[in-house]
Amino acid sequence: MKRLYRVLAIIGALAFSTIPALCDSLASWKDGAARSAIEDFVRRVTDPASKDFVPPERRIAVFDNDGTLWVEQPMYTQLAFALARIKELAPQHPEWQANPVLKAAIDGDMKTLATSGEKGLLELVMVTHAGMTPDEFQANVTDWLAKAEHPRFKKPYTALVYQPMLELLAYLRENGFTTYIVSGGGIEFMRPWAKDVYGVLPSQVVGSSIKTKFEMVDGKPALLRLPDVNFVDDGPGKPVGINQHIGQRPIAAFGNSDGDLQMLQWTTSGEGPRLGMIVHHTDAEREYAYDRASSFGHLDKAMDRAQAEGWVLIDMKSDWKTVFPSAR
Amino acid sequence: MKRLYRVLAIIGALAFSTIPALCDSLASWKDGAARSAIEDFVRRVTDPASKDFVPPERRIAVFDNDGTLWVEQPMYTQLAFALARIKELAPQHPEWQANPVLKAAIDGDMKTLATSGEKGLLELVMVTHAGMTPDEFQANVTDWLAKAEHPRFKKPYTALVYQPMLELLAYLRENGFTTYIVSGGGIEFMRPWAKDVYGVLPSQVVGSSIKTKFEMVDGKPALLRLPDVNFVDDGPGKPVGINQHIGQRPIAAFGNSDGDLQMLQWTTSGEGPRLGMIVHHTDAEREYAYDRASSFGHLDKAMDRAQAEGWVLIDMKSDWKTVFPSAR
Repeated sequence: MKRLYRVLAIIGALAFSTIPALCDSLASWKDGAARSAIEDFVRRVTDPASKDFVPPERRIAVFDNDGTLWVEQPMYTQLAFALARIKELAPQHPEWQANPVLKAAIDGDMKTLATSGEKGLLELVMVTHAGMTPDEFQANVTDWLAKAEHPRFKKPYTALVYQPMLELLAYLRENGFTTYIVSGGGIEFMRPWAKDVYGVLPSQVVGSSIKTKFEMVDGKPALLRLPDVNFVDDGPGKPVGINQHIGQRPIAAFGNSDGDLQMLQWTTSGEGPRLGMIVHHTDAEREYAYDRASSFGHLDKAMDRAQAEGWVLIDMKSDWKTVFPSAR
Repeated sequence: MKRLYRVLAIIGALAFSTIPALCDSLASWKDGAARSAIEDFVRRVTDPASKDFVPPERRIAVFDNDGTLWVEQPMYTQLAFALARIKELAPQHPEWQANPVLKAAIDGDMKTLATSGEKGLLELVMVTHAGMTPDEFQANVTDWLAKAEHPRFKKPYTALVYQPMLELLAYLRENGFTTYIVSGGGIEFMRPWAKDVYGVLPSQVVGSSIKTKFEMVDGKPALLRLPDVNFVDDGPGKPVGINQHIGQRPIAAFGNSDGDLQMLQWTTSGEGPRLGMIVHHTDAEREYAYDRASSFGHLDKAMDRAQAEGWVLIDMKSDWKTVFPSAR
């Protein structure tokens, strides 16, 4: 009897694993070096007869978010959220008017805000992201995303994800990979929608965070978000975040900026088959064109290292048939 | 064609899901309140017709490790590891002899070590757990576990896991749960063996940690473990660690000491069906009998709260047919 179940289970598993071979999982990818690099890598690590075979539990792929999975121009979406939130909260906080950074944010004075640098941005994040429970914060994010529109595309931000990357995420999962987001963005900013939009569970999101504390409120246990940085998951922080959350070195990494340099290095310097890819924003018409001169998604050192490291550039303009999902 | 595959996939899935109903997954559990609490809960959350049905992605169960999944007497296994390591390393570090805490640890002078309190223990952990890569540390753990023996049972520590809890972990996973370890012990102390012993992946281990930094060594990327506490995953830290790693509130929690109190509170105060259980060490003959007076696995407040909170005590002596796996 047990044998019968095993046979049926295998049939079920085979049915699943055969689907990607029958239809074009990467339909939005043109034939070319980028697509071939993905398909060759997946074939090598999934073929049990290959010397490069990797068992499913070690098939870990990590993806940056801003500029790799969704649009990061003209500013990070989380910054747009923080600016909207501070405007919304300002009437209850007249004391913020005395703080030049917060006043600039409330007034939408981006020039003053930019000159305040990282410290100013941190101040903005703290007053808009702390002082509430994780559930309340995630509800704020969900509410804002439901009504906010991208200034150029006039669409919800969650519609401005890259269709070819959605296909890539699904294709990897169909082939036994576990897909993680490893982003400089806030872990709890991404969690409320990553499952619906990317198919990535809350436990598969790694990101920056502020400290959180446990307390009893009116006899009920609660978590409170504190205005205190816990972890910055960017640059050299990404391999640290990966080690902390995933506990295994990934075999594939996808990024688009120098903030992904160390994640790409860490991933592709391990033994056995490795894949490192960089989304290169070359398409001013359908999306944006930027790299070395941009402050959001600055791509300079990682591009210089790409050839020597064997990282494959994804040329948005020539490698992608479509950029955004059509039905959103 | 797609429909056929879907049907086959469903057959495969059904084959899997029917297996637990046919054999006794909880063979080492005697009939009684504890076993019934587990089975009733699983039935309620997995039956699609039940008003308490929970979709698989929200079926999260968290387990303490020391004293809940494996033996924690006469001392935490990680402390036995640290004591063995410091003896092994001492010849290369004559300077440690000048430090009374480290000298006591090297000499096995447990009385002096105990009076040094938490600060002393931390010092011991830092010199034995930091200054190496995570891979090197995990290799140390693996090597030690392969040769170390429990002083009373004369068996490897990984053989002194509780057979009924192994069955419970597997039973929950068969029923669509994801099982996590949430322990005050070191996250990287547990990861190297949690998969083989418990079926828990490295990404599903939440624990205490020291800081880690990314650096380039001879042109190769590396992680270095630093002698600096990063996170203490104990007591009120457990809900924080759960939130950080898993990003969802569990629906079932299993602990055995006051260090699990807040995890139990956090888990069982959520809406919908919840299960909280406490392993009560009542079996001096087959394992140990301890609760309110013990320093390792101190169980006092959590036991006082159990009845009011609806947490079910697992009486080791009367609820478990066997304690340890027979074949190890």
